[in-house]
Amino acid sequence: MSYKRSNQQQLLSKLATNDQHGENSPYFDGWKAYDSDPFHPTKNPSGVIQMGLAENQLSFDLIEEWIKKNPRASICTNEGAHDFKDIAIFQDYNGLPEFRNAVANFMGKVRGDRVKFDPDRIVMAGGATGANETIMFCLADPGDAFLVPTPYYPAFNRDLRWRTGVQLLPIPSESSNNFQITIESLQKTYENATKNNIKVKGLILTNPSNPLGTTLSKSTLKSLVKFINSKRIHIVCDEIYAATLFTSPCFTSVGEIIEEVECDKDLIHIVYSLSKDMGLPGFRVGIVYSFNDGVVSCARKMSSFGLVSSQTQHFLATILSDDEFVVKFLEESSRRLGKRHAMFTKGLQKVGITCLRSNAGLFCWMDLRKLLKESSFEGEMELWRVIIKQVKLNVSPGSSFECLEPGWFRVCFANMDDETMGIALERIKIFVGKAEGEAAPPTPVKERRWRKELQLSFSTRMVHHHDNEGGAILPHMKSPHSPMPHSPMVLC
Amino acid sequence: MSYKRSNQQQLLSKLATNDQHGENSPYFDGWKAYDSDPFHPTKNPSGVIQMGLAENQLSFDLIEEWIKKNPRASICTNEGAHDFKDIAIFQDYNGLPEFRNAVANFMGKVRGDRVKFDPDRIVMAGGATGANETIMFCLADPGDAFLVPTPYYPAFNRDLRWRTGVQLLPIPSESSNNFQITIESLQKTYENATKNNIKVKGLILTNPSNPLGTTLSKSTLKSLVKFINSKRIHIVCDEIYAATLFTSPCFTSVGEIIEEVECDKDLIHIVYSLSKDMGLPGFRVGIVYSFNDGVVSCARKMSSFGLVSSQTQHFLATILSDDEFVVKFLEESSRRLGKRHAMFTKGLQKVGITCLRSNAGLFCWMDLRKLLKESSFEGEMELWRVIIKQVKLNVSPGSSFECLEPGWFRVCFANMDDETMGIALERIKIFVGKAEGEAAPPTPVKERRWRKELQLSFSTRMVHHHDNEGGAILPHMKSPHSPMPHSPMVLC
Repeated sequence: MSYKRSNQQQLLSKLATNDQHGENSPYFDGWKAYDSDPFHPTKNPSGVIQMGLAENQLSFDLIEEWIKKNPRASICTNEGAHDFKDIAIFQDYNGLPEFRNAVANFMGKVRGDRVKFDPDRIVMAGGATGANETIMFCLADPGDAFLVPTPYYPAFNRDLRWRTGVQLLPIPSESSNNFQITIESLQKTYENATKNNIKVKGLILTNPSNPLGTTLSKSTLKSLVKFINSKRIHIVCDEIYAATLFTSPCFTSVGEIIEEVECDKDLIHIVYSLSKDMGLPGFRVGIVYSFNDGVVSCARKMSSFGLVSSQTQHFLATILSDDEFVVKFLEESSRRLGKRHAMFTKGLQKVGITCLRSNAGLFCWMDLRKLLKESSFEGEMELWRVIIKQVKLNVSPGSSFECLEPGWFRVCFANMDDETMGIALERIKIFVGKAEGEAAPPTPVKERRWRKELQLSFSTRMVHHHDNEGGAILPHMKSPHSPMPHSPMVLC
Repeated sequence: MSYKRSNQQQLLSKLATNDQHGENSPYFDGWKAYDSDPFHPTKNPSGVIQMGLAENQLSFDLIEEWIKKNPRASICTNEGAHDFKDIAIFQDYNGLPEFRNAVANFMGKVRGDRVKFDPDRIVMAGGATGANETIMFCLADPGDAFLVPTPYYPAFNRDLRWRTGVQLLPIPSESSNNFQITIESLQKTYENATKNNIKVKGLILTNPSNPLGTTLSKSTLKSLVKFINSKRIHIVCDEIYAATLFTSPCFTSVGEIIEEVECDKDLIHIVYSLSKDMGLPGFRVGIVYSFNDGVVSCARKMSSFGLVSSQTQHFLATILSDDEFVVKFLEESSRRLGKRHAMFTKGLQKVGITCLRSNAGLFCWMDLRKLLKESSFEGEMELWRVIIKQVKLNVSPGSSFECLEPGWFRVCFANMDDETMGIALERIKIFVGKAEGEAAPPTPVKERRWRKELQLSFSTRMVHHHDNEGGAILPHMKSPHSPMPHSPMVLC
């Protein structure tokens, strides 16, 4: 084996033989756990429920209904087949004009028509994955750095860094401030980098945030744009969750900000996709939208490596240019996401689990700090393994999002039906109830305090005193000295 | 403007500000000429006819007929819409199992079932463009080199080099040897590189060749595999034109060779696509097929940047697993390509133009050396401009294929209907006829000799003596001292 390995190291590239692809993260490991034992309501009811995948599956019926009424939208129907040839051979990297128009129109609608998108700046890429890599290739040379607020999407380590050689420099955040990015932390990270002779080329934001499910306020966005403008560095706004907003405060696109703040538009770039807002990740529609002509030109050349299938372009051009459908879909999808979010968070609240208050996204940022055996990333991983293996839910640990505080988990809630969500909540309840049942009789006063704490917004940072002798917080681990005897999930 | 340029150079990456993307080649310029004045039989009958695009448009009716009979193949029909959700969310980079099975089956059928392809080695990429880049990222570090026989596909300079930083080292070939690759020229190029401390990582072949339209003999392929095996370098066989074979000799895949020659299979890789063989470039189906497990694993991770739309995977899985259709399609497509090739080459022969003898591909390698004002690449470009601007045909000059001898042009023949092909041939005839009409009375003996030469296989290298004082060979240039007074295209 070691001969084989060293042989491969000589034969293959460094990319192929190092592990910079980032797939060794627990984020992906959780997927593997799901893949090896996937839940099915009848065929495998005790399997792992996938809550690690940010999919939007709640509004497919609307699209299916539309399809049945619009057979011409497809080149693979009797009604549309006469277009088959023209579409099947279409490989122009500008994209079908009607596709670019429809996507620009859709991007505007998602942002309440407060931003107008120019179809000539719509550049295709292979999903947001490809779009994010493309923008890095356009903006930075190997070794250059981008600043990125923590916690951030785990696959950024692959998408933005792996083949481009770009570095990501995490900007610290903390729960006491709702994980919000501050100009101070940004400034400090920037200065540290330049002190170490690292060339900082820009700042990456996901807005709405993955994994937080929060949006940036207009004033924060303005400050950030002023900051990057003053440093002459780029801002790349990943807005792929724009239409997942389900409650106030509203979402503000960087496209609105630059109309209000004086800045060099050559520094402003948006990454978009239809994977989340329309729930079509399989269709691989990523968009680079840049206000910089040079980036548009370069990204368009690069789009040759990840063009959207023209069959898919044609279909989307038709459905997304149906304004009546788009408006209805966006409204209904947002409504259903809000309803599901409420169902999930209320279910968690009943068993004493809180999440960061959020207004968008397909996930919650769940606070399980109280359940950690020890307040460390080892403790977080231990809890995560229990959740995967015993509770049989694939959730993603905060460490894989480069979160600096252990005990936070991202849990996706829109990639399943109500029944499966009910089962997931039931499993959590049983897990918690079992823990309660096995627990020592609670001390009423302390319990009340604990429950109150759990119901508080996480904005009050909670300090945990763990049992250094191994006080157990999980059902399979027994200890008479748990520091949190009153937690419903604690055994003692 | 210069401020703007220098500003962009500071802001953007080297990739975005240099011109290594290769799009400044006349190969792409010809497309632009077509785009600005495209031929249409009724709307723009004097426009440029596109003969620079290697598309296979001759058998779409077969696919359309199949579609109408198989509405379930699409998720956008009444019959197939119930699969919409499952397919639209499918984003696994392994691909739909039925897609991989169908593609493996199709690749076998294209090769007469002489090679069996393992579906688990089928890795998706964004077209052959993406597949070629992916394999470079897997095999070579920036600065490493691949050897590539000339003439070669112009966009290799973008696909293989641009973002990977890999060098391409051309292997010389000459018309006297039908542009065949020889072990001697390969050996010499390899040795020159190593002498110059360039790390050679492999050899790239297109088989069938683009632009030659020829296939490599089994014995040549065996020698090449033995060579790369002895040097411990890779061979990447781009076999995207495998099913365009329309006459003998037959096509041999490297997949057959490695069963007959002792070699390390870790060095063997195939690039495939459905753009040419099925005529579906818009669908962006590129395949990396490697016999090296490390490459399969790495390429699969990279496929995240260029997954095939799951809508398209689903459709192709259905049509390509219909063996009866596949066999019929492959036979009929080959027959139609052969017929068109014969129509085109016979039409050229009538006006005294020969092409390299070929048995595959969607193009001919046309010999216009006799028509060069001077035997140089400047002369070639001058002739090319006349063909684009006056004859109004977009053909591609040999220089853009890194051909070392001026006067060869690639002309595509399968991306138009019979009527348009007739018009293209008519334009050539008129161009030639006009030249003849304006020409001085021919000397019969010499003319006969000239015609005989033109009808010879190009394997007899023809030496041209041009008028150094500016003897004209083109209708718009008059000279009384043409060295080729008997050419039908020569004015004197």
